[in-house]
Amino acid sequence: MDGTISALRWQKRELILLDQTRLPGEEVYLTCTDYRMVAEAIRKLVVRGAPAIGVAAAFGVVLGAYELIANNCDLATGLEPVFRELAATRPTAVNLFWALARMKKMLAAGEAATPEALVQALEQEAVRLYHEDIEVNLRIGEYGAALLADGMTVLTICNAGALATVAHGTALAVIRTAVRQGKKIAVVACETRPLLQGARLTTWELMKAQIPVALITDNTAGYLMQQGKIQAVITGADRIAANGDVVNKIGTYTLAVLAQAHGLPLYVAAPTSTIDYHTPRGDLIPIEERSGEEITQIQGQRIAPAGVKVYNPAFDLTPARLVTAVITERGVISREEWGKNRG
Amino acid sequence: MDGTISALRWQKRELILLDQTRLPGEEVYLTCTDYRMVAEAIRKLVVRGAPAIGVAAAFGVVLGAYELIANNCDLATGLEPVFRELAATRPTAVNLFWALARMKKMLAAGEAATPEALVQALEQEAVRLYHEDIEVNLRIGEYGAALLADGMTVLTICNAGALATVAHGTALAVIRTAVRQGKKIAVVACETRPLLQGARLTTWELMKAQIPVALITDNTAGYLMQQGKIQAVITGADRIAANGDVVNKIGTYTLAVLAQAHGLPLYVAAPTSTIDYHTPRGDLIPIEERSGEEITQIQGQRIAPAGVKVYNPAFDLTPARLVTAVITERGVISREEWGKNRG
Repeated sequence: MDGTISALRWQKRELILLDQTRLPGEEVYLTCTDYRMVAEAIRKLVVRGAPAIGVAAAFGVVLGAYELIANNCDLATGLEPVFRELAATRPTAVNLFWALARMKKMLAAGEAATPEALVQALEQEAVRLYHEDIEVNLRIGEYGAALLADGMTVLTICNAGALATVAHGTALAVIRTAVRQGKKIAVVACETRPLLQGARLTTWELMKAQIPVALITDNTAGYLMQQGKIQAVITGADRIAANGDVVNKIGTYTLAVLAQAHGLPLYVAAPTSTIDYHTPRGDLIPIEERSGEEITQIQGQRIAPAGVKVYNPAFDLTPARLVTAVITERGVISREEWGKNRG
Repeated sequence: MDGTISALRWQKRELILLDQTRLPGEEVYLTCTDYRMVAEAIRKLVVRGAPAIGVAAAFGVVLGAYELIANNCDLATGLEPVFRELAATRPTAVNLFWALARMKKMLAAGEAATPEALVQALEQEAVRLYHEDIEVNLRIGEYGAALLADGMTVLTICNAGALATVAHGTALAVIRTAVRQGKKIAVVACETRPLLQGARLTTWELMKAQIPVALITDNTAGYLMQQGKIQAVITGADRIAANGDVVNKIGTYTLAVLAQAHGLPLYVAAPTSTIDYHTPRGDLIPIEERSGEEITQIQGQRIAPAGVKVYNPAFDLTPARLVTAVITERGVISREEWGKNRG
């Protein structure tokens, strides 16, 4: 899985997470031995990125199930609080709910089975989700790479890379595949305040992959576009509404407005599990508001006056009209085709 | 001078600077006893903001002159390297060159005077620049306040406040005056990466003035505009070209594009000394590129991988067509009037 990077691994009934809060300074792994640890790791962004969160939560269910049978508890009723706690970790990315729904379906299907058989079925389903994610990202890479031309410089925000998925990434899978096809692609990474996933994770990941990357403050994207130094914008997504509206990392909407003003395409790369057909429009998607300390403190150091009022929405909404195309594992859906092809 | 805040003070032949690199954590003053210290303070952003830099440099010349006469050196030739070093500190803000030109003119006018009389004339000119700046900012406040309606929330970037000037500020003078007139104005401060002047200085200054302020990441401006939570954008300027193009803190251009997309006015508040009539267009203004470490390190802590490539332009260019009006001490110049009224 990209040779060196593995955001999460299931091994001997333990979920091993690369602690992304400590990158790039330290490459430290957190071993989750129960579902509460998984929930906490998702809340604290030890593991982050919509697809990775989904897979991690599925393994959280498996850990919960193993704990229940070790204690001779009923799985169906015992897993209810497990599902509840995992679902309550983060509200915006839909892959979490999608993965938990897959696990619930498996649980329901196995009602007649022995507890041991049922736990195994749950474990197999989580492993399936894990491998599906790899396969899906490879396909996203293949479909998306056709949109990138040799010599392009591509701007991205946050980390929609291997670290946000089981492997390869979504937006970065597109770039990886284009590079593998022999195209010369350079990446500009927006640092992505407040938590600096671009500065900490995307640069780290691309440098490991030997793909040229330059880091900028989020403030600099407009200037580079004005100077003609960017040819496309590519991002991931945390949830896509049925009408094609995209909710993604805060700042994506600003990039979308800038891209339109400069005549640049904005591509959103995401698995179809990110599409929420039950939510007709993006403005109905809940936007997580996180602690103001993420802004007033950087790595534990205070940078703003004590007591200052802060807004810290973690995501924003990009209306479908600003999204040139969504790149999924089933193909590229252009803005024009969205209405016809969805599903 | 705003009761409590004084970015620079001339006292007993010393220039006392509030060290803005250490705000808001510490309120520490740096006493400059020679012109080299002033130059270093400008380079290191101990003192920053276009008008404040101009006044500080003028006092730098005075310190240089006192040093020369103490050593029985010729002022006219001896001040040449002083002017040169002060002019070389920062390339973008034009007020620096404007203030140095005023001092040079005074030097030329006093050619026949005794060295002692000439130094006094230079000191008086610097003190005049100091007091003019206060007066100019009060007038900018008066003219600009008329543009702000009761109940507005105004977005600003960087610090165009008392800390960027001798007192009152430019953009923040407009807000202060509107508030003093009884209007209820709330401010949203963009933190302004990389050096966080919004988070560190603007919030600090507005909290001292008891004006409601909320801090956001630069990434969040677009989202708040989309939500209808911003009614105007107001910024300072580092240099305005003869055609009305504005060079200001990196990120201003992005705000201008966002403001236009949301039908919001963008006001630029600046003294006429910020207008560079010798430069016909903004793209001819040199943009300072600062060290990449300003981005890869925050308060000495590394946040990005070692060796990562970085772009760090300190300013960007907002074309005149995106600027609703420029607020000067001589009145408000709308986009439409600019061509006719300049000068």
